[in-house]
Amino acid sequence: MFRITHKDKNTNARVGLLETPHGVVETPEFMPVGTQATVKALSSEELKYCNAQIILGNTYHLYLRPGMEIIRNAGGLHKFMSWNRAILTDSGGFQIFSLTALMKVKEEGVEFNSHVDGSRHFLTPEIVVKLQHELGSDIMMPLDECLHYPSTKDKAEQSLGLTNRWAKRSKEEFARVVLDSPPEELLAGRSNNILRASERSERVEKLLFGIVQGSTYPDLRKRAAEELVSIGFDGYSIGGLSVGEPKELMFEMMESAIKYLPEDKPRYTMGVGMPHDFFNAIEMGVDMFDCVVPTRNARNGAAYTNEGRLIIRNGEYSKDLRPLSENCDCIVCKNYSRSYIRHLFNTEEILGLRLTSLHNVYFYVNLLDRIRKAIREDRFVELKKEFEGRIF
Amino acid sequence: MFRITHKDKNTNARVGLLETPHGVVETPEFMPVGTQATVKALSSEELKYCNAQIILGNTYHLYLRPGMEIIRNAGGLHKFMSWNRAILTDSGGFQIFSLTALMKVKEEGVEFNSHVDGSRHFLTPEIVVKLQHELGSDIMMPLDECLHYPSTKDKAEQSLGLTNRWAKRSKEEFARVVLDSPPEELLAGRSNNILRASERSERVEKLLFGIVQGSTYPDLRKRAAEELVSIGFDGYSIGGLSVGEPKELMFEMMESAIKYLPEDKPRYTMGVGMPHDFFNAIEMGVDMFDCVVPTRNARNGAAYTNEGRLIIRNGEYSKDLRPLSENCDCIVCKNYSRSYIRHLFNTEEILGLRLTSLHNVYFYVNLLDRIRKAIREDRFVELKKEFEGRIF
Repeated sequence: MFRITHKDKNTNARVGLLETPHGVVETPEFMPVGTQATVKALSSEELKYCNAQIILGNTYHLYLRPGMEIIRNAGGLHKFMSWNRAILTDSGGFQIFSLTALMKVKEEGVEFNSHVDGSRHFLTPEIVVKLQHELGSDIMMPLDECLHYPSTKDKAEQSLGLTNRWAKRSKEEFARVVLDSPPEELLAGRSNNILRASERSERVEKLLFGIVQGSTYPDLRKRAAEELVSIGFDGYSIGGLSVGEPKELMFEMMESAIKYLPEDKPRYTMGVGMPHDFFNAIEMGVDMFDCVVPTRNARNGAAYTNEGRLIIRNGEYSKDLRPLSENCDCIVCKNYSRSYIRHLFNTEEILGLRLTSLHNVYFYVNLLDRIRKAIREDRFVELKKEFEGRIF
Repeated sequence: MFRITHKDKNTNARVGLLETPHGVVETPEFMPVGTQATVKALSSEELKYCNAQIILGNTYHLYLRPGMEIIRNAGGLHKFMSWNRAILTDSGGFQIFSLTALMKVKEEGVEFNSHVDGSRHFLTPEIVVKLQHELGSDIMMPLDECLHYPSTKDKAEQSLGLTNRWAKRSKEEFARVVLDSPPEELLAGRSNNILRASERSERVEKLLFGIVQGSTYPDLRKRAAEELVSIGFDGYSIGGLSVGEPKELMFEMMESAIKYLPEDKPRYTMGVGMPHDFFNAIEMGVDMFDCVVPTRNARNGAAYTNEGRLIIRNGEYSKDLRPLSENCDCIVCKNYSRSYIRHLFNTEEILGLRLTSLHNVYFYVNLLDRIRKAIREDRFVELKKEFEGRIF
């Protein structure tokens, strides 16, 4: 399901192909975040225009709104939001542990009050796998406990135990519910669920990743990685990063985990995605990223360019007829000036944040494309150097 | 500049071609409203996708923000907002008389405090023509006094006198400033402003319309129309409508004005634009419309369809997999369901109002296209009948 096609001569960076039921994703890749079945302010057509190969959805949010009944009725998340490329879903662990009220963690699962309407819910690792299966997710995450930064080692160790026991249960449920169930299209018009062997072998399976936790403790990160690898997953996420810890600590933890992860499986650093982070993480062998930065910061008027971050509201841009980014060939940069986009922000016009969001996602997805090309040509270190000193 | 290409056999409806410096506009036509140099929530590319031939800008708003210096710097409003088709600008009269504070109307012009920052301004009919010329407007409106509904006849008569004196001054200023000035592209690289006769004759001129006021008094509407016609304009707007008066009164006033307007000039009912209004006004010989309804109501979740208005938040659409409008071939209706768009509104996602705005403008512009086709084929009355009883 994952095949490395080129390894950089000078670093641990690699280019690979990850097969999913909704297409092959070339890595390293950035995944725009579509929490509530929409990447904020952008349409599915625009995401395709940006060449996004895969986007993120969030199980917690979608489970609450619109709810599974409505998504099932639409035939899954892809059809619901008109997106026929790959979708990775986060389990919702992070949201349950950061957004909800009156949360109660038990061995069986986690109980909490919805941040939307206060209603009480109970989710287990098994239910979360089923929810993601029903969403039609191509790459699923197991329910995990997400700690705040900083956490004591005792707390972190205890939490890690639970997260890994949940991971094992998720894997078992995944084998039962996902791998044993035939794809819907083959079932249509059949009287039973039995697939012929030939159908079975042609099928591209959904994937389940493990999530390496362990807070800021290298030995816990090692233990987390080793335990998950012994369970065996299709890929490995590194969670609990970018939650307020210093950057050096973040990369130290990344390294502590990666050392114990198999070379031949994709690695995904969750929630990490400032431009410099890409270079530093890819250098260590990371393959997948997601981050709300390009869309959230766009809505606040921050545009990402090769030269660094540009705050469009600044007075210096009032008569600047250049595009957001001078070497960008996106439709926003072809048609609109900084002067105009600044006016749109000053007058609180929706088009301002739309154009900036579109440019930023284009910039991000395109940056990863340039990185892949550089790795293929063993120029990764040079490209990384080009970006040194730029302020994002 | 205006040529009627077909007259309906059964009504006063007509199809025409209106030549502007930024292309020929086929009438009757609906103009999406781009008050602040953007049709709310839509990009210029999307407006082209909708086949909008001409859009509206607003002199008052643009004069305040971003201000003339920034628009001049961009080379005019068209370049500023990346729109190379026609633009009609409202003079700002309506906004001055409805939005500003401490307003003082004098014979010379009108003094007021900006609704944005309270700054004091003084605008005359001459200045307003110059501002529109600097914006690069293709079709300009003279400064007029806009009355609230209801107004006494005395007040309306007095106001009409002023509006028509301002109209005359606008025409004189237009002749001085606009018609005598060579287009910028011909000036580039020249040492003087004199045009050769051949250049002059090939040039498509900017247009100045007169605005028929007169509140709800038929005899004042008649007087307004006759005086303006004797001054002579490129087209005639009917102002002061759709400001709270009953519909029957609105159409009565429309008729009172149209009777005295020349057959061979375009007629524009300002701010009028509910779907039924199109049929009723076009039947009387109206050629141009603008209205914020398709975009403003879209942002509140109202979609326009052949079957009437659809309130997308209604529970009945929660699992409705049909498009907003079943016979619509716009990209929104091709790719997204009512169920999905309802979810976007419920979660306050920007994409919800984007998709509804795009569909509504497409529906409006396309409806006028169908009306033109019906007139050409003398089927206007049939098409009008099709829409009877639909609730918008």
